[in-house]
Amino acid sequence: MNKNLTSNKPIIILVEPQLAENVGMAARAMMNCGLEQLYLINPREDHLSDKAISASSNAEEILYRAKVFASLDEALHDIDFLLATTARHRDQTKTVYTADKAVNVVAQKIFDGVRCGFLFGPERTGLRNEDVCLADAIINIPLNPKHCSLNLSQAVLLVGYEFYKTQIDAPQEQFVVNHSRLAGKDHVLKFCEFLESNLDDCGNFKVGEKREKMIINLRNIFTRNQMTEQELNTLYGAIRHLLKK
Amino acid sequence: MNKNLTSNKPIIILVEPQLAENVGMAARAMMNCGLEQLYLINPREDHLSDKAISASSNAEEILYRAKVFASLDEALHDIDFLLATTARHRDQTKTVYTADKAVNVVAQKIFDGVRCGFLFGPERTGLRNEDVCLADAIINIPLNPKHCSLNLSQAVLLVGYEFYKTQIDAPQEQFVVNHSRLAGKDHVLKFCEFLESNLDDCGNFKVGEKREKMIINLRNIFTRNQMTEQELNTLYGAIRHLLKK
Repeated sequence: MNKNLTSNKPIIILVEPQLAENVGMAARAMMNCGLEQLYLINPREDHLSDKAISASSNAEEILYRAKVFASLDEALHDIDFLLATTARHRDQTKTVYTADKAVNVVAQKIFDGVRCGFLFGPERTGLRNEDVCLADAIINIPLNPKHCSLNLSQAVLLVGYEFYKTQIDAPQEQFVVNHSRLAGKDHVLKFCEFLESNLDDCGNFKVGEKREKMIINLRNIFTRNQMTEQELNTLYGAIRHLLKK
Repeated sequence: MNKNLTSNKPIIILVEPQLAENVGMAARAMMNCGLEQLYLINPREDHLSDKAISASSNAEEILYRAKVFASLDEALHDIDFLLATTARHRDQTKTVYTADKAVNVVAQKIFDGVRCGFLFGPERTGLRNEDVCLADAIINIPLNPKHCSLNLSQAVLLVGYEFYKTQIDAPQEQFVVNHSRLAGKDHVLKFCEFLESNLDDCGNFKVGEKREKMIINLRNIFTRNQMTEQELNTLYGAIRHLLKK
């Protein structure tokens, strides 16, 4: 699914959030995940209060851009595909996605030009059934069933994070080499020989029959960890200093 | 990788956390993700204070079980494989994993009996280079590069959540049918015919040549959405009531 960040991004819809601070923290989580549009249904507190702005931690532009609606019905005027986030089992016939599956469905919809929204309920009670029934499907975030309560901003963060992952093309694993380049196998072998010859001189390989096994151990240590030229030079220097002593 | 929750779970190690509240929230996030063991290196505040317990939101057992160490070196006495979580680029030659790749590596190590730890730095400054250099690899959580600062508990939550996903075997998509079973195709077709014959009687298909197309539209509506027997009965009832009126 990996593609560049799209301009058609999913909308985060908070139904009757109780605390301005939580709305601010949700905005921060959205900013972390590259999401931009927040819809607030009947928020109890002012989402532009000092508390909200401060909690957003430099994501206040999302709060200023947020739209407030009196009802969920009104907010859905420009949503084509709606996913309701809920932890509890619902008495409704509907598809339930894990968060990672849900965001893949959403990423595909967005690619097809469908306008998507993620729905989150009030902090204390979660979404009402009459809100959930308006959603095309349910998102269930897989968490410890004995302790799955999240605060609002954490739920937004987990869904947003999963969505963000569908939008980037980052390598999952990268060996970062700093200010140097990997030492070639020949250089590593030369270093091993340098070390071994010095160990011979020092009498390290006293028991002859163990020499071969110890050399294999040593060579394994230094060939297994992808050393850089710089690290190899550091080791040469260290050994030369040990020899001087 | 999916396997049952293991008893050899990764340890969360917080280096010099500043606020007890953040330690409490990190414990809550651990509990959300089925993690159990918390190591605290030189915490500035008491992790068993009222503030910490309250912030843990019923995860206080993790706080009571937490072990406090004076230095990271001491804490590593029973860790074999250490991953450092850091957002900033580090001046070190090391493998950098995304969070989802990292947890797969860890899940495999744990399966092999290797004791793993996730390392998190202080809230304000993050990990020091001398802490990072003790780690086998770095975890980078993919987030909006323009706004990637997370609070401590959110970082713990994202890494813990990714790990939790490797330990469960939940279906990514499930069509949940409530108190009923899916209506067979024959029942859906019978309903369509019932509806069409009533629409014929009402004069809905006035323009004869459009009849076929409208019937295909109607049948698509009702065959696309996997109705249950209960839902079908609800529709029968609704139509019968409309006819009475």
